[in-house]
Amino acid sequence: MRKTLIVVLVVVGVMLVSTGIVLYAQEARPQVTQGVFATLPDAPPVPEDNPMTPEKILLGQMLYFEPRLSASGVISCHTCHNLSLGGTDRLPSSLGHNFETGGRNAPTVLNAAFFNLQFWDGRATGLEEQAQGPIQAGVEMAMPADLAVERIAGIEGYLPYFQAAFPGEENPITFINIARAIATFERTLITPNDGLDRYLRGETDALSADAQRGMEIVVQLGCVACHQGPMLSLGVLMPFRHGEDLGLANVTGQEADQFMFRVATWRNVSLTAPYFHDGSAATLEDAVRTMGVVQLQRDLTEEEVFYIVAFLESLEGEMPVVNIPALPAD
Amino acid sequence: MRKTLIVVLVVVGVMLVSTGIVLYAQEARPQVTQGVFATLPDAPPVPEDNPMTPEKILLGQMLYFEPRLSASGVISCHTCHNLSLGGTDRLPSSLGHNFETGGRNAPTVLNAAFFNLQFWDGRATGLEEQAQGPIQAGVEMAMPADLAVERIAGIEGYLPYFQAAFPGEENPITFINIARAIATFERTLITPNDGLDRYLRGETDALSADAQRGMEIVVQLGCVACHQGPMLSLGVLMPFRHGEDLGLANVTGQEADQFMFRVATWRNVSLTAPYFHDGSAATLEDAVRTMGVVQLQRDLTEEEVFYIVAFLESLEGEMPVVNIPALPAD
Repeated sequence: MRKTLIVVLVVVGVMLVSTGIVLYAQEARPQVTQGVFATLPDAPPVPEDNPMTPEKILLGQMLYFEPRLSASGVISCHTCHNLSLGGTDRLPSSLGHNFETGGRNAPTVLNAAFFNLQFWDGRATGLEEQAQGPIQAGVEMAMPADLAVERIAGIEGYLPYFQAAFPGEENPITFINIARAIATFERTLITPNDGLDRYLRGETDALSADAQRGMEIVVQLGCVACHQGPMLSLGVLMPFRHGEDLGLANVTGQEADQFMFRVATWRNVSLTAPYFHDGSAATLEDAVRTMGVVQLQRDLTEEEVFYIVAFLESLEGEMPVVNIPALPAD
Repeated sequence: MRKTLIVVLVVVGVMLVSTGIVLYAQEARPQVTQGVFATLPDAPPVPEDNPMTPEKILLGQMLYFEPRLSASGVISCHTCHNLSLGGTDRLPSSLGHNFETGGRNAPTVLNAAFFNLQFWDGRATGLEEQAQGPIQAGVEMAMPADLAVERIAGIEGYLPYFQAAFPGEENPITFINIARAIATFERTLITPNDGLDRYLRGETDALSADAQRGMEIVVQLGCVACHQGPMLSLGVLMPFRHGEDLGLANVTGQEADQFMFRVATWRNVSLTAPYFHDGSAATLEDAVRTMGVVQLQRDLTEEEVFYIVAFLESLEGEMPVVNIPALPAD
């Protein structure tokens, strides 16, 4: 009798504890991650000196697809930041002018407008400065700024579009205006309503149980020290000692800047393999394992990798619908 | 008195004759060109063994923009047949794999579905056969057929699209099905309602007076021996002795095929400079002058060139609206 009572009590106790755990787990999930992540805002910040207008968006869209901005006449922004491919080219490093490769993986243009620092080494501030880089880079579009302006100004059909985008300017076809228009178009390339955002807005089934577990794991492991906020990236430079690329130090020569790279966004990350500044991780699993070793100094278990990847795969937002723009012939 | 009468009679006579000429000219225009040109049909012919379905159009659109069909992973059909640029790349000859150039100018994909013979030398019959060429050509996409199939089949996200496009096929991811889907998408790239078509449908002001005069001139000069019908091209091979390219004879080795090239369409011709199989004419004016010398054995007057170009410029139809398709990541 006593034995039976004990058994019953133990069973009841286990049931209570189990229920408690289950209840705790259900309650805890929002607690654990509260304040770590945030939904993507509807629109990115816009610089005061480059307000968005429909006319400027249209011109920027045209210039984004304009291969005549390159020396060869075949490479446009869209070549390496391909909206069919998650805003990247899915290559370890891009093939540019003369099929030469640059040293780094092309970051996605999707939601890039939410970042202040641009490029892997954060050497540019804002999309307007960023857009001027690849046009001129010898291994990318290889087009000197003055020739780019000359070529675009030589296509007479562009003038009314520049006049509409930059009203009142006497000579609107300038290199900075080309960059301003492209940046403005890029501010429309936002991917709302991924699994996390819908989950954070209260759709509890927008993340699978696996993805929710992965979300908890990245919090518990501390990945979110850098991967947090609306972009799931602080958007700042952090040390990442992987490979021989010295990061920002290549630009500044400062020892303190060695291996400093911008924290990559997790938004749409399952669309943008291969990973890292050198494109050295072919899959999300590879990337997660490497981050464990390099940043956390630990070998993640296969289970941890599985759940983290499930979470990362839930971060594909709605792709912007973009028409191929008709470009003026001459 | 008699003198005055004569003067009056002469003046009246001249007025009558002038009026007659004007009336004749107004009446004559439709007469002169009647039966020479035809409006573009709403839809092109479709082969019996490759019916069009929305699912196949969508898959074809995806594959048309798919750079992973190339060895480098950066060149798609759209690279050289760019819908922003009138379905061409606006280069004398395309830059393909390793930035090598092919020998010929990329013909426009717009309305290509109305042609039976494909390529400048007409060596392919139908779009399905055509689409297989550039994927495999060493200086274009440089992708052997079996590797193309392997790569596409390796992207798991494609399978449901192939199953939907080719229902009931056990193994739908084949090279011929890739070509069939691309050809099906290309059959949607039609540009209706250009100036000529609207004019032929009774909108008499759809062609400017200059364009109408140009239309008469191309009839009177005999350009329309080859440039007639809905495509303003017979779509067959005709001799064009210009440059050193031997045309179809390169393929057949037959002397009779020397300098045989497909007659180019005039539809959207003002969007597709430079001109000819070798891209040697930079402008429409250049092209018209050269055609006068080579095909008509005469130097066209500046007036003739002006009016002919005015007519050719009226042949820009409504561009198809095409969204950038999202392509499966893996």
